[in-house]
Formats: sequence, structure tokens, C-alpha cells
Amino acid sequence: MKKYQGISYKNVHITDGFWKNRQTINAEVTSHAVYNRFADSHRFEALDCSWKEGMNYTPHIFWDSDVAKWIEGAAYIIAKNHDTQLEQLCENAIDMIVENQTKEGYFNSYFLVMRQSERFKHRGYHELYCAGHLIEAACAYYEATGKDKFLRAMCKYADYIYDTFYVYQTASFTTCGHPEIELALVKLYDTVGDEKYLQLSKFFLDKHGNNTKDTYTNKYHAQDQLPLTEQHTAEGHCVRAMYLYSAMADIARHYDSDAYLEACRAIYDDAVNKKMYITGGIGSTKMGEAFATDYFLPNDVAYTETCAAISLTMFCKRMQLLSADSRFADTVERVIYNGFLSGVSLDGKSFFYENPLEIDPYFANVNTASEQKRHMPIMQRVELFSCSCCPPNVLRFIASIEELMYTYDEHTLFVHQFMNSEAAIQQSVIRQTTDYPADGSLKITVEGTDFAQIAVRIPGWCTGFTADKPYTLENGYAYFAAEGEINLNFDMKVQLYEANAAVQNNAGCVAVARGPVVYCLEEADNGKHLRSLGISSQAAFSLEENDGYKVPVLLTQGLRKKEQEGLYRVYSRECEQVTLRFIPYFAFANRGVSEMLVWTRVMD
Amino acid sequence: MKKYQGISYKNVHITDGFWKNRQTINAEVTSHAVYNRFADSHRFEALDCSWKEGMNYTPHIFWDSDVAKWIEGAAYIIAKNHDTQLEQLCENAIDMIVENQTKEGYFNSYFLVMRQSERFKHRGYHELYCAGHLIEAACAYYEATGKDKFLRAMCKYADYIYDTFYVYQTASFTTCGHPEIELALVKLYDTVGDEKYLQLSKFFLDKHGNNTKDTYTNKYHAQDQLPLTEQHTAEGHCVRAMYLYSAMADIARHYDSDAYLEACRAIYDDAVNKKMYITGGIGSTKMGEAFATDYFLPNDVAYTETCAAISLTMFCKRMQLLSADSRFADTVERVIYNGFLSGVSLDGKSFFYENPLEIDPYFANVNTASEQKRHMPIMQRVELFSCSCCPPNVLRFIASIEELMYTYDEHTLFVHQFMNSEAAIQQSVIRQTTDYPADGSLKITVEGTDFAQIAVRIPGWCTGFTADKPYTLENGYAYFAAEGEINLNFDMKVQLYEANAAVQNNAGCVAVARGPVVYCLEEADNGKHLRSLGISSQAAFSLEENDGYKVPVLLTQGLRKKEQEGLYRVYSRECEQVTLRFIPYFAFANRGVSEMLVWTRVMD
Repeated sequence: MKKYQGISYKNVHITDGFWKNRQTINAEVTSHAVYNRFADSHRFEALDCSWKEGMNYTPHIFWDSDVAKWIEGAAYIIAKNHDTQLEQLCENAIDMIVENQTKEGYFNSYFLVMRQSERFKHRGYHELYCAGHLIEAACAYYEATGKDKFLRAMCKYADYIYDTFYVYQTASFTTCGHPEIELALVKLYDTVGDEKYLQLSKFFLDKHGNNTKDTYTNKYHAQDQLPLTEQHTAEGHCVRAMYLYSAMADIARHYDSDAYLEACRAIYDDAVNKKMYITGGIGSTKMGEAFATDYFLPNDVAYTETCAAISLTMFCKRMQLLSADSRFADTVERVIYNGFLSGVSLDGKSFFYENPLEIDPYFANVNTASEQKRHMPIMQRVELFSCSCCPPNVLRFIASIEELMYTYDEHTLFVHQFMNSEAAIQQSVIRQTTDYPADGSLKITVEGTDFAQIAVRIPGWCTGFTADKPYTLENGYAYFAAEGEINLNFDMKVQLYEANAAVQNNAGCVAVARGPVVYCLEEADNGKHLRSLGISSQAAFSLEENDGYKVPVLLTQGLRKKEQEGLYRVYSRECEQVTLRFIPYFAFANRGVSEMLVWTRVMD
Repeated sequence: MKKYQGISYKNVHITDGFWKNRQTINAEVTSHAVYNRFADSHRFEALDCSWKEGMNYTPHIFWDSDVAKWIEGAAYIIAKNHDTQLEQLCENAIDMIVENQTKEGYFNSYFLVMRQSERFKHRGYHELYCAGHLIEAACAYYEATGKDKFLRAMCKYADYIYDTFYVYQTASFTTCGHPEIELALVKLYDTVGDEKYLQLSKFFLDKHGNNTKDTYTNKYHAQDQLPLTEQHTAEGHCVRAMYLYSAMADIARHYDSDAYLEACRAIYDDAVNKKMYITGGIGSTKMGEAFATDYFLPNDVAYTETCAAISLTMFCKRMQLLSADSRFADTVERVIYNGFLSGVSLDGKSFFYENPLEIDPYFANVNTASEQKRHMPIMQRVELFSCSCCPPNVLRFIASIEELMYTYDEHTLFVHQFMNSEAAIQQSVIRQTTDYPADGSLKITVEGTDFAQIAVRIPGWCTGFTADKPYTLENGYAYFAAEGEINLNFDMKVQLYEANAAVQNNAGCVAVARGPVVYCLEEADNGKHLRSLGISSQAAFSLEENDGYKVPVLLTQGLRKKEQEGLYRVYSRECEQVTLRFIPYFAFANRGVSEMLVWTRVMD
């Protein structure tokens, strides 16, 4: 099995540009904003395990995971910024966890106070999911600070899980209802090297759809519809699915399992070719927060959870370690500039759980005689959700986004993502100088002799590029000799995209994109009734710099259907010329409640 | 207050053409099909009030209304066809009702066996709704046969209701959760002339939103949001609302109440200008089976109950008695050729409850990890529903459709609807010779001297017509001297209609109509992915006769977007020329499960 090495976020320093801006906001604003909302909502306090009936909060089954993801994100920031204030906040939380850990190694702030006697009895109560996030956080904190107190505690917890689930099998279930432990155990193995963790991860994977102990309300929700190696389509709760698929890719790599690898490849193809929004959003329906029928991609009720977008990159990142095929990095790029980034406000303080591709505030609360309401995504980001998994996921993701940039083997360094940065990989130093994605020019310099060649991804959206060095193209990468300086230029012309005819709700419409960035119309710029607007398929666009977005706004001449009185009338082609202003999709809903539309009508 | 007289269905004989065909199917097939399904499902048996625990059925709160509507429909057929078999079936049912009526006059096959002691204690249990339908049926049966046994029994019931609700006010509620009794009492008054019934009807109306006794889970659902005279928008459960508005129009007329009339006019404008599908369907959401927010008119999940379509014509019919304005008859026409008629199969045996304007079978059962399902309309008509209000409503409506054709006052006969027919009104005989709506030519002859003038509705859809006699136009009617023969010709060219920009889901699309008939595309004729098809706004149509539909099929050259591999690609204008075949909307779903689309894309 062909394999590649990944890198640590610690190896790369993003120096300027789009992601530097985002990492700065993430470190300076988001880390504290999430901390404060978690503190307000007693999530840190709960770690103390001193909750009693009558107190002004009630611990929740997934709070540990929220805190763990925050620690993990904070750890990445600490490693780079040496932020002692953040470190102290982490230490306080870690102390509470370690102090309240049982002798056997168990820790769960919910079960320890609410269901002391019900430990490992409820498959659907996120116990191992929380454990997994604590393990990931402990690994991250150790890597960031070198302090191993948390890591040792979580190794002890992992040992206890190993005994309970693998050796003695005394738990009431075999696999957790919400995957996460599987990939966390691989990370723990990668950190400490103990093979039992890898073994336990594989055990969990092998048991999915393959044991008589576990029950489920819905087999797809629990990923039990088939043994994982026989799954070839992306199904069920989207985040749960992708976390599990990520672990499958990990296990495929560590165990040279072609069966797991083939399943991963098939699942990837299914997800990306039939179930993904153009923004990289996945999980189109709130019903089960799940993948739905192929091509079911409604825009206004798109669920497309921010965590699902992140989880898709997690899966792609692992697939990059098993293949030199650019489509994984293409998908990562689609996600990070669109359906992931829309999940956080430009100021870094507030978040979307759902990332729809169309908003019409007028219809957001359809009024009827019924007490029932249609479920519609919220229209403005908020600072905290009761199920607040997304905010700390954003924090840890942006803080470690460098890990998506490179992979390598003994000959070749693969450049997947383009950010103004300096990286130290093996004994080599790689510099990228670029204003990507605002601009398509990219200079890459390599110092050092580790790699014979450098393979630069030619983005899937790119219909033309130039390079000043000879190259060969293979599976989406341009292979250059790794010496000196390479200058590339990706043609960043604005493109109009259409969807497969099976996505009937997008018929007659196009998505406007420039480079990897998908754009949208907002009422704030274009008035109401955005579906009354149309662009020509031959539209010429002008660019307007925007320092807030770090990519340009797009302007073009379009048409607005003449407004009419009454409900129905004989069709008239009467239109007025208007200037359409497209902003990056990721920036929608930063100027108050407003109509928003990605799929814009073609009017010619 | 200006008032007009209505006519009885008995005054008109439809001799040939579109509605003759439908009335024949209705009398010969639908009457028996509905009877048989109601018999199978024990709805007639239940009238016997001999149900005991353990029997193979359970009486239901609205079964009496189902049977009553069937008797009412059968009565109309008996009056015309002298169908002794139908009459015997009616007699059997009537006997059971009369035999089981209590001494006080009460009859309800559900309460008498299931909740003997709970009579008039549950506002939401359809008790007076069932009573209302029994009263309507009794009036109809008396008018059809001259037999008064059922009528006398129902007068006794009405007297008991009068005492209980009006005189002694001993019921636990003031107005029924499901209106119907109000308009039935007016019909009873019109039949037997006792003013107490009119008084009671007005009492019920006056009490809506105007009493402290009634509680509700949702004030709109129960039409209690405001006193009725202060209501100016169409709200709440659509059928309940329209039945109540119909009674309001009745009471406005009988009591010369400007307050009720003004409320009716405002409500009508609101319903028709902001909440009606182009098919005349109303009640756009299943949530509460209700009117929704203005311009919320989704096509695939359009609720648009068949009974709601009927109830809109009931309201319009009453408004025609209060105004010489063609917009009421225009709406009736929109409903009867489209959103009502789609409710019954061409063979008369099966029915839709919901009448969507778009069907995509592929997305009808979106598969997710959740146990929840999206509610989607069924795609093929069925013979019986558990809540089977629509089938007998179709029966009684088609059997008495003549009543929508004419109104008159001392000077003028108003011709609202066009059917090949002969009518006796006062001492005059009016003949219509027409192939409407297949063709726009219409000959009207009047014999007799009752009317100085004849006012012929010029349909709202008609952009050009000719007449061979002089006329003056006023409020949508052409006024002719009532002598001899009048020949009119309505230009029946195919028209493309667009919706108000606020109906965002119809942007860029047109509805194809010819005369009053709205058309649709079906997969059976046009292949899958109907939204990939487009027509030119300048499209020329050819007509193809169709004996099954009794109106022509429309053919035009259109475009089909080239199908593509993959999920997204750079937009291409590549299309192929195709012949588009539009069938009447009312005829959809008569050839198996199939995609269907009313709002078709304009591609130029």
C-alpha cells in the first residue's frame, strides 16, 4: 500500500494573507469567545464534578467533548503564540479532569455526577465520544506544551476502555453511538506508540454492523447497516459517519487494509459526487443530521453542519496519506473557503451550526394555524448553541489548518493548499509566497535536499495555469524538480457552475465562483427577491478589493425582473439592468438578517 | 344591499361536453365507488349505533359527515337520473339515522356508542360539523325526492341544537371547532323557512372570537383570533375557514350586514391575491392544513386539499349573490378546471386529498438516518382515506355544479360558467351551446321575458373576444339585451403566466394555460428531470385533440438542458431541441407514478 507522511501544524508558520488573518482572529477572539460562553454556560465548572440537584445548571452528556475541543484548539494556539493566559485556562480545566478521574481511569463529568452506576451502559450517551475528544485534547496539549499530565491521565482512561470493551467486554454495548474514539485512539497511538490503542480502534471498527450486542433505533444512524468494509455509500448522521470514515482511513493505513481503503474510496466518491453542496457542505437534512438520498440538496433547508464540513476535511486529510490524487485536496479546498468558513463570523465571535445556501427571511417563520413550525436554519450566527459542538471545532480546525497543506514521501513533497507561509519538513524549508485565494500567483521555494520533486496541486477549478519550470502532470499534481524557485499562476477568472440535472432545485441556475471561493448574492447589496435577479451566461465581472473578506467582491451587469402587482399575470420579459454584487459565500450574514442566494438564475 | 338570486341544480340540464362527461362518470362510477369504500370501511354500518368493543371497526368522530356528504351527492344524482338503486341505499342509511336518533333529536353515531355521556362537551370533536352535514344532506334529499322523513328528523336535531346552544347554553362550548353547522343552518332555513335556524347560525358566527367560554389550542385554527366581522385576512385551517366565510356571506345576505360583507370581501381579496395557487388551490401547508404566510406557495409540498378547493367555490358562490363582479366566477372557474378537478381520477374512482403542483417521485421518500420523514403528498390517487372527506365532497360538488352557472335579479341574468346546457330560470329558458373549455365559442339563447338583459362573464384570462350583438362591459360582464341568440367567441390562445416576484419558488418559470385550463408536464410524455426542460416565452403551440381529457393536449418545441456526468461543472448552454407535451393539470397522475411540473422554466 502506497503511503505518505503528514505534517504537524507546528512545522508551518503562516506568515501573511487570508489564513494569517483568520488564525489571528481565531487566536485572539474566537479562543476567548468560546471559552467565555462555555464558562457562562457552566461547561468548565461541570468538570469539577461537584454538581448537586438544585444548582443553576445541569451537566450534559456532551459537555466534556465541547471543553476537550476547546483545549485542543487552545493547545494549537499556545504552541504558536505562547499564550500563557490560554495555557492557564487549559491547566485549570485539565486539573479538574485529572482530579476527578476515578482510580480505574474513568472520567466523564456527566456520568460521574448524574449516572454514577450507569457507566458504559448507554450506547447513545456519547461516553466514548467524550473520551475520544479528551484523548485528542490530551495529545494536542502534550504536543503543544510538552506537559504530559493530561496525556498520562488519558492513557490511563484509554487503558480502562481497552479493558472494558476489548479484554473483558463488560460494557453494555460494543461501539459508541457517536464515533470519535476510533480516530482518537489512532492519534493516541501516534503520540505514545502503544499498539493496544490501534488494536482497540480497529476492534471498534470491525464490530460496526458486525455484532449482536448493539441495538439501534436506526441502523444507519449508528453506522450498523453493514460491516464497515462492505459500506460503499455515505450514509447516516453526517458527522458521526465522517468521524468513523476518518478512522477507517487511519486503520487502512496502519494495518495495510485494502478492504478498509476500498470502502473509504467508494464512500468518498459517493459523498462528493452525489451528496455534497458546491460549498463543500454535506449532510443535507436535519432529519437525523444526515446524508440523504443522492442529489437531494435543497438550498434553503440545507443542514450542512459546520462540524460536518470539518469532518469531511478530516476524512480527506487521511485519504491524502493514502493517495497522490488531488481530488481529496480539491475537496478540502472547497470546504475551507466555503461551507466551513461560513460557520464563523468575520469577527470570530459567533457561529452557524447550519450553513444554508439560500435565505429568505420572509419565509423563515411561515405562519400557519398550526403549532408546528417548519424547521429552518437560523439567519444570524450566535455565540453559543445548547448543542455547541461547532464553535470549538472551528477553533481547533483553524488553529491547525496547516496540517492540510503538505504530505510527502521519500521522493516527493506534495503541496495541497496554498498559503503565504514557511514550513520546515524533514530538513527542508518550503516557502510559499502568494496572495491566494485573492490572487492566483504562487511562488514556491524549497531549500534542502530531502525531496527530489515537488508536486503542486493544480486546483480542480483551474482551467488554465502557467509555470516557469518544466513539469509533468499526474492525478491533478504538477511535478517539478525540487530546486530553487517555482512560479505558478492559476487563472482566476470568474466561473459559472451548474449542477447535475438530478439536483432539480438548481435547474436554470448557476453558482458564481472565482478560484476556490463560491460567491452569493445578499439583499444588503442587491435588494429583495434575489430570485428575480438574473445574470447572463456570458457575464463579465469586475473585481472590487475588500479588506474585510481578503478576496474581491464581484460586480457584473445583470437583470432584475420587473416587479408586478397581483399574484399572477401574463408573462412579460420586461427587465431592468442592474449591477449585481456578489460577495464570498463565507461572508454571508455579517450585515444583519438578509436574503441570501448562491444559485443565481441565468437569464439568457 | 344589492342581492341576486341563485339557482338550483335542478333548473339546469347539462346536455353534452366537458361537464356532461364528468357528471356521467360521477353518477355512474364515483357514487358507487365512494359508497363501496365507505361500506367496506364500516361507515354505513356505524349508523346503526350497535357498535360494541371488540368489533372489527371503531366508529370515528367524522364518519357521519362522510356518509352525509355521500347522501347529499346521491340526492343530486337521484333528482336527475331517478336512480332507484342509489335511492334505496340512501333510504337504508336514513332509516338507521332516524331510528337511532334520540328522543331529544340528537344523532351522532360516534358519541351515541363511544361517548354517550359526553355529548356536546368536546369542541374539537366535530359534533356540530357532522350535524351540519346531516342537515345539508336532509335538505338535499328532500329537494331531490320530496320525501321529508330525513328532513323532519334533522329539523328536530336542529331544534335540539338551538335549545342547547342558544336558549339554555348548556353545551361545554359555544362554537364548533370545525365550522359547517353555520352554513347548514342557513340551508335549512332556505328549505323550511323557520327563522330560528338563521338566528342560530348568526349566533354561532357572532360568538367566534367573541366569547370567554371556548378555549382553543390555536386561535387561528378555531377562527377565534378576532370577531369575524373584524377579520380581513384568510387564516387558519383552510376548509374550516372557508366554510365559515361561506356562512358569513350567507348571514351578510340574510341580515343585510355590511360588517359581515366587508369582512368577506377583504378575506376574499387576501385569499385570492396572496394565498392561492394558479390552479385555484388554497391552504399551502400541511401544518394545520392551513393558509400560510402571504406568497408561501411551494409546489412540491403544496397541501391544497381537494375539499379546500371546493370550499373556495362555496364561498365564491355566495359572494356572487352579493355582487355583480366577475372575479368571484373567475375564481370558481380557476378552481373547477384545475385544483378541484385534479382531486378525482379520470375514471372517477380515486381521489387526491392533496393536489401538489410538482411531483418528483425520486425525492418523494428522502432516505435519511432518521426515523422522521418529510411529509410529501401522495403521487397516485387512492379510493379511500382514513380521513376521507374529499371523495364524497367531489361527488356532491360535481353533481350540483350547475348551481355555479347563473345568478339573477329582476332585470338581469348573469351567466357565470359556460357549459353545454339548458336551464329553466323563472319562466325563461336559457340554452348554452358550447364546447367550452375545449373551444372558446359560445352561443346563448334566451326564451322568455323575465330578464331585460343578460350579463355574460368575460373570463379574466381572456385577452380578446368577439360578440355578434352590442354590449356594454362592467365589472367583467358583457351586458347584452336579452333577446334571441348571442354568439361570443373567447380567444383561446395559449398563454404563459408568471407569478408575483414574492413567490420566489416560481421565479424564472411560467405556467402554461389555455382558456381556464392550466397545463403541466409529465414524465410519461417528457422524460425525467422536468426542470431541465425549458420553453421560449415566444413559444408557438399546436393542439392535439384528446377525447379522454375533453380539452386538447398542447405541443411546442422546447429545449432540454444536456444531461451531464458528475455533480458540478462549468456552465454550458448546450441544449437539445425537444417537443414538449403539456397535458391539463387536472389530468396528472392518471398514467402511473411520474414526475409532474406546472411551473416550467422559460429559456430565453
